[in-house]
Amino acid sequence: MHADLIINMDTILTMDKDLRQLDDHQIVVKDGRIIDLCPQEEKRWTASKTLDGTDCIAIPGLINTHSHLPMSYFRGLADDLPLDIWLREYIWPMEAKTLNSSVIHDAALHGAAEMLKNGITMTHDMYFEMPAIADACTKAGLRALIGEAIISARLAEGQKPGDQLRILRQEYRDNPLVDFNLSPHSIYACLRSDLETSVEVAQELDLLLHIHLSETKEEVQTCLNKRGMRPVQYLKELGMLEIPLLIAHGIWMDESEMDLLVGTRASIASCTDSNLKLASGIAPLKGWTDKGINFAIATDGVASNNDLDILAELGNTARLHKAINEDPSFLPAAEALKHVTINAARALGVEESRGSLEIGKDADICILDHNSLCCQPLYNPYSHIVYAMNGRNVRDVVVGGKIVVQGGKLTQVDEAELIAKAKHYGKRILKELSQ
Amino acid sequence: MHADLIINMDTILTMDKDLRQLDDHQIVVKDGRIIDLCPQEEKRWTASKTLDGTDCIAIPGLINTHSHLPMSYFRGLADDLPLDIWLREYIWPMEAKTLNSSVIHDAALHGAAEMLKNGITMTHDMYFEMPAIADACTKAGLRALIGEAIISARLAEGQKPGDQLRILRQEYRDNPLVDFNLSPHSIYACLRSDLETSVEVAQELDLLLHIHLSETKEEVQTCLNKRGMRPVQYLKELGMLEIPLLIAHGIWMDESEMDLLVGTRASIASCTDSNLKLASGIAPLKGWTDKGINFAIATDGVASNNDLDILAELGNTARLHKAINEDPSFLPAAEALKHVTINAARALGVEESRGSLEIGKDADICILDHNSLCCQPLYNPYSHIVYAMNGRNVRDVVVGGKIVVQGGKLTQVDEAELIAKAKHYGKRILKELSQ
Repeated sequence: MHADLIINMDTILTMDKDLRQLDDHQIVVKDGRIIDLCPQEEKRWTASKTLDGTDCIAIPGLINTHSHLPMSYFRGLADDLPLDIWLREYIWPMEAKTLNSSVIHDAALHGAAEMLKNGITMTHDMYFEMPAIADACTKAGLRALIGEAIISARLAEGQKPGDQLRILRQEYRDNPLVDFNLSPHSIYACLRSDLETSVEVAQELDLLLHIHLSETKEEVQTCLNKRGMRPVQYLKELGMLEIPLLIAHGIWMDESEMDLLVGTRASIASCTDSNLKLASGIAPLKGWTDKGINFAIATDGVASNNDLDILAELGNTARLHKAINEDPSFLPAAEALKHVTINAARALGVEESRGSLEIGKDADICILDHNSLCCQPLYNPYSHIVYAMNGRNVRDVVVGGKIVVQGGKLTQVDEAELIAKAKHYGKRILKELSQ
Repeated sequence: MHADLIINMDTILTMDKDLRQLDDHQIVVKDGRIIDLCPQEEKRWTASKTLDGTDCIAIPGLINTHSHLPMSYFRGLADDLPLDIWLREYIWPMEAKTLNSSVIHDAALHGAAEMLKNGITMTHDMYFEMPAIADACTKAGLRALIGEAIISARLAEGQKPGDQLRILRQEYRDNPLVDFNLSPHSIYACLRSDLETSVEVAQELDLLLHIHLSETKEEVQTCLNKRGMRPVQYLKELGMLEIPLLIAHGIWMDESEMDLLVGTRASIASCTDSNLKLASGIAPLKGWTDKGINFAIATDGVASNNDLDILAELGNTARLHKAINEDPSFLPAAEALKHVTINAARALGVEESRGSLEIGKDADICILDHNSLCCQPLYNPYSHIVYAMNGRNVRDVVVGGKIVVQGGKLTQVDEAELIAKAKHYGKRILKELSQ
């Protein structure tokens, strides 16, 4: 029988519900989907393309549940600052000064390429100028669920959350890589009326809503002062707990707020590195785990991270929460890996088609090379992925059956050109800063 | 004028006392030392070898103040466990079953090669079979201060701390890469008499003493129960605060113990990733900083880390302690970098010859490539080194004027051979485990 692509793997970690590990199997791909996972020796299939996975581990393409792709050019521009000063005195003014749809396209392309090189095959982005981001992701070959960011002060006269979204969903309906949703930035940057409209639009179009929440203590205090309730209670009042919801950060959620989330369609994207660097705090992952609240581990944007290495982020998260909870057995390696694969897919509502390597699912695959000093000896592949590997071990990446990274090199975009562009924009931004 | 090696750099971060940054300068090397740092345009020097550092940053070779090189083959063998179970039920029995001087040599060579690829030019190791470790480091081209590990239960009849040390210092006196010191494992694994002998030997030979201390809460409690005092008080009673001392971990040190260290020659090696993964705890870096106690950031061994990526460790440490101290300005990037360069050299008593790039110092240099997506744009080199780079950005490494890593490849040892050996030993260890 003939397929499009056969990948012969030493080791496949399926991340399916039984966490099956398949040794010396092949992943067979046709029309962008996995059509078989069978022992190599059976030689059932032929294909026009093959990939050799000797000394490699295949895992589902990594899913990043919270990012800001167009911030790529702000990496390292303002460090060692708290969130509110970083945002209000550096990032927002710099965005106002330097960004337009062409810069956003180029910066998003840079970020999309960087994500792919780190094994990420799908991201959930929040920013402005959605078509520019959609085109950039399509060019690089990255799947993206792109949220129209709502900041009430930036809405044009008469503009309502969702206006642009309806048009874009039509325009891009034949593009298999991108989809759109709605991202009210936060409860502090959105008027109540805009949050309510967002909920209505989400209900009408059956959308996942994406919002920053409880990222700092001050944010919770402001909500208490202004609304007389904690942030998750406010979300409930707004009807947000009745629709699919992705809460980014959720650091300062208390027990009563977690209880409100139990049984809802809300998930949380936890961004360890960004939260630590901005000194925002450490999220209650153990609390979420104990209550069965779904969460994923995400990168946030490079302006606060400052990289897009989601495997490094995974290792940092697993280590950190062992110490915080004084329990070295918390978040063991195989469990941890779920939070950037199947649990992340669940958070984005795409677990039927992504997040694990199973027959019938999209062929979104990350192939990790362990033939290096830092991965020897190999006793347990989960352990190496979480504790010893990072983005540098990503060898090949497949999205929808297409090889977008091969031998560590991007196949769809010219990396040297991206670097030259970033240098050019970097100089322009520095000039703006000095004025 | 003629030199041995000229390195033409876009950017040099000297890490000298003024933290000078030199742009478009060259590092001129002769007889293993830096003999000039001058503008490239002056063209003062000729040399038989040159390195081009376009799009690169040169920093002092990274100094790792606490490691266990021969544990390389135990990476990922036992994860998600607390220190005492990990040590007593897995590591120590496995050591007893599988290690001899030939395995120790090969595993140490593996670790030494891995360190060099991560930009480490000197390590401070603690283990058994010092000659095997010394030969391995010499072969790879890594500087090492190698401590004779003392565990009282393992000393042979009549054997005393320091017996082997005296012989080795003679035997290796012409080897510029290695030196030896004494490493009583810990206060819980050494009899008081062995600790006292260690202090005497250190005083007699003017040695740095290297000891694990206050790595877990339980260790402190045991000391309180058994000695009626806290660990640093016990060190004081033993006379250890009167000699150069390197305390590994020091997590559970209280304010009164820190006060005892002020003004002594003691430094601390803090091992963030290992401490988090074993859930040992989070060290009081802010307290040490406030009191002016010198500390360095180190990897520990791969059995608990599970990598030797000291740049990643640096970034993790800087981020973590911002959040822990609720202060994003704590450990800013340039300050953080000191803790794996000049402050680490101070901790090992080698700050006169290493730890910064200055005329007269050893030519131990790490060259980082920023011509990649993950390092664009470049606004501040310190920021990228701490927050965006890791071992994957190390391009070239020079130790004592010799290029030991060039273009990411080891020049002194065959990496494929090391990997093959590690696989072979890995299988043997698995077999031992199953018996």
